[in-house]
Amino acid sequence: MKRVLITGAEGNIGSSMRSLLADRYELHALTRESVPGLESFVADIGGDLDALLPAFVGMDAVLHLAGSSGMQHPWEAVLHNNIIGTYNVFEAARQQGVKQIVYASSNHAVGLYELDRMPELYKRRAGLELDHTAPVRPDSLYGVSKVFGEGLARYYSDKFGLSIYCVRIGTARLDDSPNSDAARKGQAWLPLPEEANLRRMASTWQSKRDLADEIDACLQAEDVKFDIFYGVSDNPFRFWDLEHVRAVIGWHPRDGAPDPTESV
Amino acid sequence: MKRVLITGAEGNIGSSMRSLLADRYELHALTRESVPGLESFVADIGGDLDALLPAFVGMDAVLHLAGSSGMQHPWEAVLHNNIIGTYNVFEAARQQGVKQIVYASSNHAVGLYELDRMPELYKRRAGLELDHTAPVRPDSLYGVSKVFGEGLARYYSDKFGLSIYCVRIGTARLDDSPNSDAARKGQAWLPLPEEANLRRMASTWQSKRDLADEIDACLQAEDVKFDIFYGVSDNPFRFWDLEHVRAVIGWHPRDGAPDPTESV
Repeated sequence: MKRVLITGAEGNIGSSMRSLLADRYELHALTRESVPGLESFVADIGGDLDALLPAFVGMDAVLHLAGSSGMQHPWEAVLHNNIIGTYNVFEAARQQGVKQIVYASSNHAVGLYELDRMPELYKRRAGLELDHTAPVRPDSLYGVSKVFGEGLARYYSDKFGLSIYCVRIGTARLDDSPNSDAARKGQAWLPLPEEANLRRMASTWQSKRDLADEIDACLQAEDVKFDIFYGVSDNPFRFWDLEHVRAVIGWHPRDGAPDPTESV
Repeated sequence: MKRVLITGAEGNIGSSMRSLLADRYELHALTRESVPGLESFVADIGGDLDALLPAFVGMDAVLHLAGSSGMQHPWEAVLHNNIIGTYNVFEAARQQGVKQIVYASSNHAVGLYELDRMPELYKRRAGLELDHTAPVRPDSLYGVSKVFGEGLARYYSDKFGLSIYCVRIGTARLDDSPNSDAARKGQAWLPLPEEANLRRMASTWQSKRDLADEIDACLQAEDVKFDIFYGVSDNPFRFWDLEHVRAVIGWHPRDGAPDPTESV
């Protein structure tokens, strides 16, 4: 089994990926706090590069999930965790000869395409379909940090031969579907009416098992040197392309969000 | 006359822009060392944001040239000068209500397109023409920092309404044409034969007066909110697009590099 180092294994998405990928890979954790049941190397990825290096020894791949992941996060957090942290993770992987990185990029690298079209965008078949070639339009400093990370990924792949897959994850933090009571509570993305927020979640939702399958497909595609994929389930309101990821690594989602209008 | 704050006014390109733009704008400098003949605000743009704010008071525009500009610059310099420095300059401009920024981006944001094609690329009409929509392929950490800066520019423009023009400057550091004796000395870009380096300079050269005119055209185009332009003279070996910048802001170069094969 491939040895995979997960950063951010203690987070919401990291916890799910650990259990969903546990029978397919030998997992190790690089975290800020020890993770029960997993070999954990405890360090701050935004800190000293040299201190991180031992965690990467003998790894075949890195699943880089760690970072500040909120649109409202201030510059200092984004700089430390996402910009310096991502540089350190890529550089440590390079120095230790790790061959593959799955990088948790984000839809927020292109989030402002939505700005002009809300809330009509979130209605079925609104017509906007973004693919991996769309010029970036980050909606936050968080989104800007993902633009940086994708650029760094391209450089490390082109220059040093690493295979790096940037997955622009949609709304993967929900434990259940966007139509659940849990999802309805406190998941507002922007100051929009509840229905619009619900519709956005139904457009952008990715189930945890779909994300795990997509990561798995990346790790199996060793001949792919660099690409950008969207991470989203096959939702009826979806406005991101899924044909490219299917064509390149053969992944297609199993899940799709229920239509929120059926219960609103 | 518009009041324009120049960062990096003490540098090679900054010095030339100061003299070439002096009769068109009221120029001020934000520099690491005082610039004779110009109101200079001395500070480190990669330092404390609050300390920079006074330099931006009353400015109509910023010409942001400061930064580490070498392919070999280490991460620490790129992080401090280009990433943190550019964030600080954009954020200070926003806080002080400055409406326009001309951002010195770089061809190194897409430099690795050249990698597969050298040295044939530098021959006349090699056929590769990159435009502003080409996916980024940075050739260095320096190039990655420019990808970051362009993403940040897009965000500040979309979100806060600033007009920001990213100019991917080519080889503008030469005092004379690429065919001069001065240019031939010590200007190697990559470990290539002298003729290939000379050809690259002849492909990518931008005369100082062409760059000054392009910056001027940006500052006159107040209705343009965001764009990416190449900064290059009309060289016979050129492989970057100039139609887009002509269509959007009406600039077209006056100069072109002499054909180096005529004297090699």
